[in-house]
Amino acid sequence: MSAPSSRATASEARDIDAPTTQPRKRGPKVDVEQTLRRKREILRGAARLFDKVGYHGVNMSMIAEAAGLKKPTLYHYISGKDEILFMLHELFIGTLRQNTDARLESGADALAVLRGVVEDVFKLIHDYPGYIRAFFEHFRELDPKKQAPIAAKRDEYVTLIISVVRKAMTEGTVRKADPTLTAHCLFGICNWAYQWYRPHKDPAPEVIATKCWNIFLNGLAPR
Amino acid sequence: MSAPSSRATASEARDIDAPTTQPRKRGPKVDVEQTLRRKREILRGAARLFDKVGYHGVNMSMIAEAAGLKKPTLYHYISGKDEILFMLHELFIGTLRQNTDARLESGADALAVLRGVVEDVFKLIHDYPGYIRAFFEHFRELDPKKQAPIAAKRDEYVTLIISVVRKAMTEGTVRKADPTLTAHCLFGICNWAYQWYRPHKDPAPEVIATKCWNIFLNGLAPR
Repeated sequence: MSAPSSRATASEARDIDAPTTQPRKRGPKVDVEQTLRRKREILRGAARLFDKVGYHGVNMSMIAEAAGLKKPTLYHYISGKDEILFMLHELFIGTLRQNTDARLESGADALAVLRGVVEDVFKLIHDYPGYIRAFFEHFRELDPKKQAPIAAKRDEYVTLIISVVRKAMTEGTVRKADPTLTAHCLFGICNWAYQWYRPHKDPAPEVIATKCWNIFLNGLAPR
Repeated sequence: MSAPSSRATASEARDIDAPTTQPRKRGPKVDVEQTLRRKREILRGAARLFDKVGYHGVNMSMIAEAAGLKKPTLYHYISGKDEILFMLHELFIGTLRQNTDARLESGADALAVLRGVVEDVFKLIHDYPGYIRAFFEHFRELDPKKQAPIAAKRDEYVTLIISVVRKAMTEGTVRKADPTLTAHCLFGICNWAYQWYRPHKDPAPEVIATKCWNIFLNGLAPR
C-alpha cells in the first residue's frame, strides 16, 4: 500500500516529458536524458527556494545559482518561473493520480485506496519540500491557460476519491455519511500537513501517515 | 457553542484598534469611530479582492476603488497592503483565540471547546471571504517584524488547542492518541475548508461544521 519511491520517479519523468516541457533543442537520446535530468534538478532546487523564501521572492538568477548553472544555460532548459510552477503542479497531481490508479488496478479495496491518499501526500511533502506549497498556494498565479488543465486534473482526482469513498460506504468499510464531505475531511487531514509536517525533523512520512490515518479511522469519540 | 457574530465583531474592533493600526490623526471620539468603521470597510473590500485575484494581483488603486475612496484618502487610513495583510492576520487569529478563551472561561467541556474550533473556522471563512486565504497563504510575505507577533499568537493558539485535546483525552471524551497529531487532524479538517467551502453556495457554516465535526467524531470505521 505504500507508494514506492520509484513510482513517484516514474511519474516525475513522465510529467517532465510532457509536451509543454519539451527540451527546446533536439539531439541524440543521451541529450534528451541529460535534459530531463537537468530539468528535474532545476525543479527540485526551485521548489526548495519557493519553500524557503516564497514563490515571489525567487528570481531566475537564484534558480540558476541553486542548479549550479549560468542564467543563459538555465533558459536553455526552462522558459521561466511560470513553466517551473506548471511542472510542479503536473508532478504533484500526476503522482497522486498515478498512484491511485495503480492501487485501483491492483484490486486494492476502497479503504486501502483511501489510506494510500494519506500516504501519498505525506510522502510528497517529505520527498519534494516546497512542491506542495507551490501547488496549493500559487495555483492562481499560473498563466490562466495553464490553470485549466491542472484544475481539470485536480477536479478529476477529487471526483475519483469521492467515488472511492462512496464505494467504501456501500461496501460497509466506511461509515455512511456525506461522501463529498468525508473526502474533504480526508484531504484536509493530509493536505493541511504541509503547514506543520517538517520533513527532516518529524518521523518518516509513512509513520505519520499511519498515525493520522488511524486517528481519522477511529474518530475522536472513544469506542 | 456557536460563536455569536457579536463576538467576532468585538474582536475585529479590538484588533483594528491595536497600536499598529491606530488612526494617524487624533480627533474627537466621533472621528475615531468613523476611522475604525472605515478601516473595517477597507479591510473587508481588500480581503474580497485578495480572494478574487490573489494578493499580488491587487494594488492600492483597486483597494481605494473597492472602498469608494480616492487614493490619497485611502492612505489617510492605511499605510499600504502590508498593513492590511497584518490587520487580516490579527483579526483571524484574534477571533479564534478570543472565542476559545470565552468558551474555556464559561466552563465549556473540552470536547465542546474543540467543536467550537471547527465552527469558528467555518464561520470565519463564511463571514470574511478572502481573510483566511490571506492568513494561510501570505503570512511569509508580511514584513518579518510583523510576522513575529502573528507567529507567536498562532503558536500560542495551537498550543492551547493541543492542551484542550490532552484534557479531553484525560477526561475520556476523546480517544487516546497523540494529542498534537489529533489537534493537527482537527485543524486540517476545518482549515483546509478554505480550499473547497463556497460561502454563498454551500449550506450555512454551522451546518457544514456540524457535519464535518460528526465525521471526525465518529471516524471512518463503522461503529
